[in-house]
Amino acid sequence: MSDLARKTAENLRKIRATKPLIHNITNFVVMNFTANILLATGASPVMAHAENEVEEMVGFAGALVLNIGTLTDVWVESMLKAGRRATELGKPIVFDPVGAGATALRTAAAKRILAATKVSVVRGNASEILSLSDQKGGGKGVDAIHSVEDAGAIAGQLARRLQTTLAVTGPVDLVTDGGRVITIANGHKLMPTVTGTGCSATAVIGAFLAVDADPVSAAATGLAFFGIAGEKAGATAGGPGTFMIQLLDALYTLTPEEVEGRCRISAQ
Amino acid sequence: MSDLARKTAENLRKIRATKPLIHNITNFVVMNFTANILLATGASPVMAHAENEVEEMVGFAGALVLNIGTLTDVWVESMLKAGRRATELGKPIVFDPVGAGATALRTAAAKRILAATKVSVVRGNASEILSLSDQKGGGKGVDAIHSVEDAGAIAGQLARRLQTTLAVTGPVDLVTDGGRVITIANGHKLMPTVTGTGCSATAVIGAFLAVDADPVSAAATGLAFFGIAGEKAGATAGGPGTFMIQLLDALYTLTPEEVEGRCRISAQ
Amino acid sequence: MSDLARKTAENLRKIRATKPLIHNITNFVVMNFTANILLATGASPVMAHAENEVEEMVGFAGALVLNIGTLTDVWVESMLKAGRRATELGKPIVFDPVGAGATALRTAAAKRILAATKVSVVRGNASEILSLSDQKGGGKGVDAIHSVEDAGAIAGQLARRLQTTLAVTGPVDLVTDGGRVITIANGHKLMPTVTGTGCSATAVIGAFLAVDADPVSAAATGLAFFGIAGEKAGATAGGPGTFMIQLLDALYTLTPEEVEGRCRISAQ
Repeated sequence: MSDLARKTAENLRKIRATKPLIHNITNFVVMNFTANILLATGASPVMAHAENEVEEMVGFAGALVLNIGTLTDVWVESMLKAGRRATELGKPIVFDPVGAGATALRTAAAKRILAATKVSVVRGNASEILSLSDQKGGGKGVDAIHSVEDAGAIAGQLARRLQTTLAVTGPVDLVTDGGRVITIANGHKLMPTVTGTGCSATAVIGAFLAVDADPVSAAATGLAFFGIAGEKAGATAGGPGTFMIQLLDALYTLTPEEVEGRCRISAQ
Repeated sequence: MSDLARKTAENLRKIRATKPLIHNITNFVVMNFTANILLATGASPVMAHAENEVEEMVGFAGALVLNIGTLTDVWVESMLKAGRRATELGKPIVFDPVGAGATALRTAAAKRILAATKVSVVRGNASEILSLSDQKGGGKGVDAIHSVEDAGAIAGQLARRLQTTLAVTGPVDLVTDGGRVITIANGHKLMPTVTGTGCSATAVIGAFLAVDADPVSAAATGLAFFGIAGEKAGATAGGPGTFMIQLLDALYTLTPEEVEGRCRISAQ
Repeated sequence: MSDLARKTAENLRKIRATKPLIHNITNFVVMNFTANILLATGASPVMAHAENEVEEMVGFAGALVLNIGTLTDVWVESMLKAGRRATELGKPIVFDPVGAGATALRTAAAKRILAATKVSVVRGNASEILSLSDQKGGGKGVDAIHSVEDAGAIAGQLARRLQTTLAVTGPVDLVTDGGRVITIANGHKLMPTVTGTGCSATAVIGAFLAVDADPVSAAATGLAFFGIAGEKAGATAGGPGTFMIQLLDALYTLTPEEVEGRCRISAQ
């Protein structure tokens, strides 16, 4: 879809020109990698989680990234404070419900954050995203998804109910707000062998949200850009270590033109 | 010892086939590296430390890794909760008493964890391991160790007293439960130049414990595998940076056959 | 300035010979990278932040590194405890006021730490350093700095008022205690593309303070060494990822002679 490919290049140019500040409240495992991913992309990351600082910090930011990967109650409170302030200020929020569905604490925290703040995009894998549904028993699970059409229909219903845009990542990524459905086929098989590639994709969507007011377009173009960098890194990587390093180099050296030519984004 | 070399290859095959979930409550410094080490080995890492989540999370795990590298009282409570639950469930625990013997807080925390939970393997350097002994004054210190025989005898006594398996790592690693004594000569001199290689060895033992019910065998084969990856990485590394990255590549690309042929494990 | 070049080489030799323990209370983002930077330099890093441990730990250290990058009130209390104990013991402290001036919490924490402890060196960028001044309105801001002479004069006044040595880093670094003014022109343009290079420079100054009783000389020679490693890494890096890794290799492999020959330090 050449419009979205052009948009991907345009968003990347804007990020590099304006270096938007991205405020992350994220997990301990990926803080360093996420900051490096955002710097390599061209954005300015800041990590700040103190309850008595997050409202002030988010005021400077172009977007807020919330991630519950190593959550505790205190951190969730900070995320809620920052998220409510971002909502008041009309700043975009991208939310990564790491492990939602796996433990009660995570599922509950994810639902609280979604209820209390206006989240522009939720980025997760299929089971994390489906866990955000309140439907019990009768709800369809991951096993019910047999095709991109199935996934789009199920995610679309949930997106409408949650009034947000969902970015479901996997071998093929899917973005939907319940109306439009976009798939992104960029990426590389080494991505899941490095911790924090999902979390980093979320942060990259944050950078794209800072320059693109349309959540569907921001999520899809951000995922395409990140996937293309993965492809470039994977082409010469000898394993997860060199892949991780070359991913940073690729994010930094990819030109908008190169990115535009490599996008594999389709409107369904 | 060709039996243990075969066992190393077999354990690695099992890890890659079953991708056991390894629950880590570890220190801030090494969380990212540890997760990447486990992914490269073939296991599935999860980091979760919230007091109101760890009991649920450990229920899904094949092994629990406890590490006091950046401990505070709250984190030790979470380790105790997770450790007690793992003990009830019969899940193996590997414990890394980082800095035990250096400060009162660390020594006390290490002893509490050992007393309150059933630890399958303790992995540390000689001074950390010796600090776990309650013998004061009369106890022999690190300076008393003049040979592998000395180390084996001292560690063996302590292993029997603590009713666990001790993995004492250094230029040559030693594993003993007070009965069997095994040494592992694999490894590379660049390993101590990267932070968290000890902690990562502990996590790798966790992955091996998830597929091998014998703690002595799991610890010895895990250390051999990790040491062989270090040798492969060190062969072409230009310093600690490239070593760290190539270690991840080596863990990922080593075949069970290659590992079996390179094991330098000996029963004493 | 060949005296300082010789001193850079001499300090590096001392660090590698004595492997001083550097106690870091730093932010989550850079803990791993900082530990690896210190190991590659030749020092022994320890990260410990528990309120009931920091006073004991700093007793073993050659220098204390305080960094408020991801501060919360509890962490600031630990920094104050460690800092007061280091002051009592006459141990050098290097302080990194990350984000001072950006939020009220950071500016206040930075001032509290400076008031309560004897800080040998403060390392920050120009706006962080200027935020430490109590002058409001009448004080000159970053925009008032039009030359190295301006920067030296403004930083010199502030250094005298704070009774410390200031290390203001940027394309050219400036070190002053209000009397001497030294500039360091080593470094590489990829440095700001990796998170934690500023924080790492602070930690390297900590290692140099452990072997050099003169804060101006320790800060200037530490920054020169770090900048030279950056130049060596940047010469072949393909982007921020490979730069980060080659920086660790460069810190580890640079000889004192090589360092002496590449220093670009000038007394103003």
